[in-house]
Amino acid sequence: MKIDGTHYRSLWWNHDRDVLEIIDQRWLPHDFRVIPVETMQDFADAIFEMRVRGAPLIGATAAYGMALAMAEDPSDANMDAAWSYLEKTRPTAINLRWALDRCRAALRPVAEGDRAAAALALAHDIADEDVEINRRIGENGLALIREIAAKKPAGEPVRLLTHCNAGWLATVDWGTATSPMYHAHDAGIPLHVWVDETRPRNQGALTSWELGKHGVPHTYITDNAGGHLMQHGMVDMVITGTDRTTRQGDVCNKIGTYLKALAAHDNGVPFYVALPSPTIDWTVTDGVAEIPIEERNAREVTHVQGVLDAGDIGAVQVTPERTPGGNPAFDVTPNRLVTGLITERGVCDASEEGLASLFPEFARAAE
Amino acid sequence: MKIDGTHYRSLWWNHDRDVLEIIDQRWLPHDFRVIPVETMQDFADAIFEMRVRGAPLIGATAAYGMALAMAEDPSDANMDAAWSYLEKTRPTAINLRWALDRCRAALRPVAEGDRAAAALALAHDIADEDVEINRRIGENGLALIREIAAKKPAGEPVRLLTHCNAGWLATVDWGTATSPMYHAHDAGIPLHVWVDETRPRNQGALTSWELGKHGVPHTYITDNAGGHLMQHGMVDMVITGTDRTTRQGDVCNKIGTYLKALAAHDNGVPFYVALPSPTIDWTVTDGVAEIPIEERNAREVTHVQGVLDAGDIGAVQVTPERTPGGNPAFDVTPNRLVTGLITERGVCDASEEGLASLFPEFARAAE
Repeated sequence: MKIDGTHYRSLWWNHDRDVLEIIDQRWLPHDFRVIPVETMQDFADAIFEMRVRGAPLIGATAAYGMALAMAEDPSDANMDAAWSYLEKTRPTAINLRWALDRCRAALRPVAEGDRAAAALALAHDIADEDVEINRRIGENGLALIREIAAKKPAGEPVRLLTHCNAGWLATVDWGTATSPMYHAHDAGIPLHVWVDETRPRNQGALTSWELGKHGVPHTYITDNAGGHLMQHGMVDMVITGTDRTTRQGDVCNKIGTYLKALAAHDNGVPFYVALPSPTIDWTVTDGVAEIPIEERNAREVTHVQGVLDAGDIGAVQVTPERTPGGNPAFDVTPNRLVTGLITERGVCDASEEGLASLFPEFARAAE
Repeated sequence: MKIDGTHYRSLWWNHDRDVLEIIDQRWLPHDFRVIPVETMQDFADAIFEMRVRGAPLIGATAAYGMALAMAEDPSDANMDAAWSYLEKTRPTAINLRWALDRCRAALRPVAEGDRAAAALALAHDIADEDVEINRRIGENGLALIREIAAKKPAGEPVRLLTHCNAGWLATVDWGTATSPMYHAHDAGIPLHVWVDETRPRNQGALTSWELGKHGVPHTYITDNAGGHLMQHGMVDMVITGTDRTTRQGDVCNKIGTYLKALAAHDNGVPFYVALPSPTIDWTVTDGVAEIPIEERNAREVTHVQGVLDAGDIGAVQVTPERTPGGNPAFDVTPNRLVTGLITERGVCDASEEGLASLFPEFARAAE
């Protein structure tokens, strides 16, 4: 999407230098830094340290990592080593394993001498496919926003709420939850987006940065505020992303998503989840019972990063010394709280039947 | 309660210097500072700038402010002026107006020459009454915790969750929501408290400081985490405070309380609210429709205060430059989500009948 009028993706191939470049998201929203990813260690660090983040972007990055591995040593042994090395960097995001599996399956039959070129072409394809998937999610979500806009007095904005950053920074372009927003904004529909802060890592600041740079009106709020806003009729629709969706439509997303889904349900506000089909885990049915939740470092909870008065980026400790912090990174929203799933093939119910109607080939294969 | 073994209240009269002293809570939990409150400007600043905070403590502080006003000029005109001056410092907390009204009603019949002494005695009484009310809330809540403990294997802790700081720092002593916790801990019942961070002002850090100093095991979590913990059976009971309770038992408390009540309801976790009867507003019935919600400065949302690496207290800006922030400070939890109200006279249903059964004289007077 646009940054002050110039179009960017979150990663791109630098054809002059033959190297992958990424936006180093650790410094956003305060500082815009582009860095090259040149070694296998760089790739692992980029994913583990969240220089890149968001399930689809992690998947695309891993595909470029596999391409580098094949350029260095195209043997089967190195392919397996690269798979293992990259796969362990983030345990919950399903796209990481999906992308690595896809690369390995496609490259195994290729002669070793052709693997470097084939792996790079595949990484480009995976990135381009992500863009196309998210564009279609945007078109499908746009139809839902148009319906809401049609029922409002002319000029009155459609008020959306989102949690975390399921934005273009979390994908290669467009984003998932944000793609319908960008499509609606670009189509001239007046919008206002309530952006949840999303403690502990404050990805709402990234979403605010994205929306601000593209020109979409928005307000940054604490994670506590959404229920109150919905009680008072100030939210027309919630759209979030998902890190993993089960075959019955349970949604594992950033911690706190479940609380917003409860509030939406209690107030009759439609709650939609936008997802590319690679985030569907057809092997899991009951998300609450089956999905392991990543427990991250307590320092993310006890400390907050931002810009100091002097302009440097730093952190403050919020808690007293030695206070223990708990940091579950995701929660599961049961399908009964989800109004619908916005996918690249259309919108469906959050149910086994709904997902099978749009993706019959995957649903059958998983049986 | 205790700070490293020494007993403190949140305010006290210094008999040597004949002056009120308070814990300046702006520096907690990082720095423990005691300051005198010596002028009417000091009193207004103490309440407005949240050097003291929490509905009961604000009420007691205001009573001492009225005592100072009467020492300076015991006329009716100055009594009215002090009432207005102090009342405008915080718009939502009902105890402030309650304490000022009570002082004015009690002092009006007193001869001017006796008003200074009477006003100071009344302030002492209001502070002592608050301690006694909270002690009784603790005893009544303790009975509920004992019931839960009795159903657990010996030694397994009762796991409580609380939001904001309804602790002894928000009252004169004991706290409201924390009083049952301190009573249970002092009675030898093993406890573990999940402490919500409570953005934007992170009062969870105050609650963590209190609990830590008194020796109660606890973990600081983001406001997003509670739903996930309840889904996985890790919370036995929620206890929060309230800034204003309606005659039908709706609860206006720190923003985000409603979301925790929804999660408790969805998971069958008992959700209790601890309140001294002065926080009941008998003139209001439907909290969502009738209670005006204070919108505070956006800087509280866009910036976070804490301790810098060098040990100084400072703030970081979390959001991009010029991002608008929204900051509703309270929300209303409808009575249907509240399991019970813990008052100084016992535990009742969150309903008009429940409250009237414990406080028949007030319920009748308000009709």
